[in-house]
Amino acid sequence: MSFEQKVIQSGTVTTPKGFLAGATCAGIKSQDKLDLGLLYSEVSCVAVGLFTTNKIKSAPVILSQKHLENNKAQAIVVNSGCANACTGERGIGDAREITNLTVGKLSILPEDVLIASTGVIGVPLPMEKVRVGIMKITLSKEGGHELAKAMMTTDTFPKEIAISVRADSEQVIIGGVAKGSGMVHPDLATMLCFLTTDADVEADFLHSALQRAVATSFNMVTVDGDTSPSDSVFLLANGLVRNQKIGFNSGEAFQAALNEVCLYLAKSVARDGEGATKLMEVMVEGAVNETEARQAARNIASSSLVKAAIHGSDPNWGRVVAVVGRSGIEMNESKMDLYLNQMCLMKSGNPVSFDKGALRRSLDKKEVYIRVCLNIGEGKATAWGCDLSEEYVTINSTYTT
Amino acid sequence: MSFEQKVIQSGTVTTPKGFLAGATCAGIKSQDKLDLGLLYSEVSCVAVGLFTTNKIKSAPVILSQKHLENNKAQAIVVNSGCANACTGERGIGDAREITNLTVGKLSILPEDVLIASTGVIGVPLPMEKVRVGIMKITLSKEGGHELAKAMMTTDTFPKEIAISVRADSEQVIIGGVAKGSGMVHPDLATMLCFLTTDADVEADFLHSALQRAVATSFNMVTVDGDTSPSDSVFLLANGLVRNQKIGFNSGEAFQAALNEVCLYLAKSVARDGEGATKLMEVMVEGAVNETEARQAARNIASSSLVKAAIHGSDPNWGRVVAVVGRSGIEMNESKMDLYLNQMCLMKSGNPVSFDKGALRRSLDKKEVYIRVCLNIGEGKATAWGCDLSEEYVTINSTYTT
Repeated sequence: MSFEQKVIQSGTVTTPKGFLAGATCAGIKSQDKLDLGLLYSEVSCVAVGLFTTNKIKSAPVILSQKHLENNKAQAIVVNSGCANACTGERGIGDAREITNLTVGKLSILPEDVLIASTGVIGVPLPMEKVRVGIMKITLSKEGGHELAKAMMTTDTFPKEIAISVRADSEQVIIGGVAKGSGMVHPDLATMLCFLTTDADVEADFLHSALQRAVATSFNMVTVDGDTSPSDSVFLLANGLVRNQKIGFNSGEAFQAALNEVCLYLAKSVARDGEGATKLMEVMVEGAVNETEARQAARNIASSSLVKAAIHGSDPNWGRVVAVVGRSGIEMNESKMDLYLNQMCLMKSGNPVSFDKGALRRSLDKKEVYIRVCLNIGEGKATAWGCDLSEEYVTINSTYTT
Repeated sequence: MSFEQKVIQSGTVTTPKGFLAGATCAGIKSQDKLDLGLLYSEVSCVAVGLFTTNKIKSAPVILSQKHLENNKAQAIVVNSGCANACTGERGIGDAREITNLTVGKLSILPEDVLIASTGVIGVPLPMEKVRVGIMKITLSKEGGHELAKAMMTTDTFPKEIAISVRADSEQVIIGGVAKGSGMVHPDLATMLCFLTTDADVEADFLHSALQRAVATSFNMVTVDGDTSPSDSVFLLANGLVRNQKIGFNSGEAFQAALNEVCLYLAKSVARDGEGATKLMEVMVEGAVNETEARQAARNIASSSLVKAAIHGSDPNWGRVVAVVGRSGIEMNESKMDLYLNQMCLMKSGNPVSFDKGALRRSLDKKEVYIRVCLNIGEGKATAWGCDLSEEYVTINSTYTT
């Protein structure tokens, strides 16, 4: 399917019409790092969100879910350095105060404010810094780039994109920013991702389109198997293009572009997983159905043993087969084939002799492809992950100290 | 419950009457390391086994399951350095040949031979070395110690124990050896564990006793979340003590001692996880039932983020709470308490201020205790794991190279 999509050079979440953003160094992380950002639409938007399935939910998640009940939003406040999760009643109070500060600054309705916080769990927000910080933020058309930086924790690069697509007679733009890069094993959403569009879109369709896009992108990404209490994906459509309203009968091109945006951001999250040096793409084909293919692909992409082997360019392919076996899906060893970077290592359950040196060299590249053919059905799915490096351990053994 | 159990100094799998063992450097691993071992009972034993739930099963697992159908065995052959898994028809043929070589050496029935192989997956056994090796092995009463070493892969120490216990009027002994130390997340069994006893025990009871002992020991241990295709636990009872046959009505003391042996070996496997520097004990209490407590405990013990924090003595306790939230169990954040090394960090869902320096110092010790009180029911369970170190990655990024 081709829908005249175009990736916009240096595009970001403020590329669609009517969106502004800005960020500041509030001092939540440290003095010289952007850690507080604001995204704003000039008009109220149709808005939908997907949230973590973790039963521990951060205060911002609880409040944003409530604010989205009317499917409207006009601003998103985000901070890094503190997740405001496991902070009890105080955390909810702090999230409410952030809402009120934003209402005061922007003169919008409290229900139109969405909040997201990411960072350490179990520590309250330094509200005196947040209060000053929100006042200091200046909004601009270029501010999406600063916003993308302000939401980073252990991310090593900002993740942003904008794609334009023709919806009926009008060009609409979908922009997005996201952050990883640890506690990433999303289960309905990812860590944090904000999506914007200047298209006019029906709320029900917008929600369904977001679910579909997330199912094959963020929900197929894993860094370390842990789902965060802060996971949130927001999608705001302000309709400023004044196109004919997009709905279930006219949404194909919009859906395809949204899928592209989510896929790009999700792969960026995997590529920039904590300590990662390589992006791992895992395709599982020939499963009895898509659900089982997804399950196997995600299990492979999150196996510490597979990830460590990929890190060392060690063609220890038996580990991949062992993960498939323990993943709970239907399978038949004697029908299974396995490919690593297009090289066949197992055919119908039997090992195939291969050029170890050539495979090692190909595994040294920045992207590694694993393909499992179960050959018992039509189900297929792709998951993305990263290698497991000594650096991951170093980052995560000293996170709060 | 006290059953006059006694741990026997330097006890091992050959400490019970009538068991002999031996091992040799066959050259499967490298020239100077024990890698092929044999355990033998002077008389045929009542024997039971538990095996991996991985759908990929190694050739030794497939053959041993078949040989155990009659609940009898007299010998176990084990090698390290090669798992003989994902080796197709050739692997089954090689396992059969090992059976026949053992039959030839010991003059026992083929069905009385059990086989276990551990090491790299997807590589065939070097049978010429195995053939010579089996002939070279000399059996002795002290040979259990050599056997424990011959089954090691990345283990840094052998895992062996023997406990004597009074069963009615007689003292019986239960001995055991086990190996880890990667691809450990057992789901019915662990990597490899061989248990022996000189007690006379009814087969049905023996099987049930083994299941019960494994449920709270090996099945509650995790190193890296990956279940191996080679997992096997064998328990051989040769009856040479000539005690009154132990069965369901008289097995309490035997069960308690068997639990002890399994628990000791399981904790040793966790303590010696690949790259591990600390043993992590995770207790979950107050869950709605035991199944949910087990699920939460195992999830915590296998979280890379928790394991890395423990490695760095980083009191980043929010990660533990986040794992409970994503573990799929019933819970109520506002009722939950959390303790790290007896220090309360969260009470009824609210963070508790604590002495960070003191906690860090206590986390520097070799054993770390995590206790989660859900306070919504009576279910409790304990799981064991280890920290995640840079060394784990180093080991596993160069395993076959």
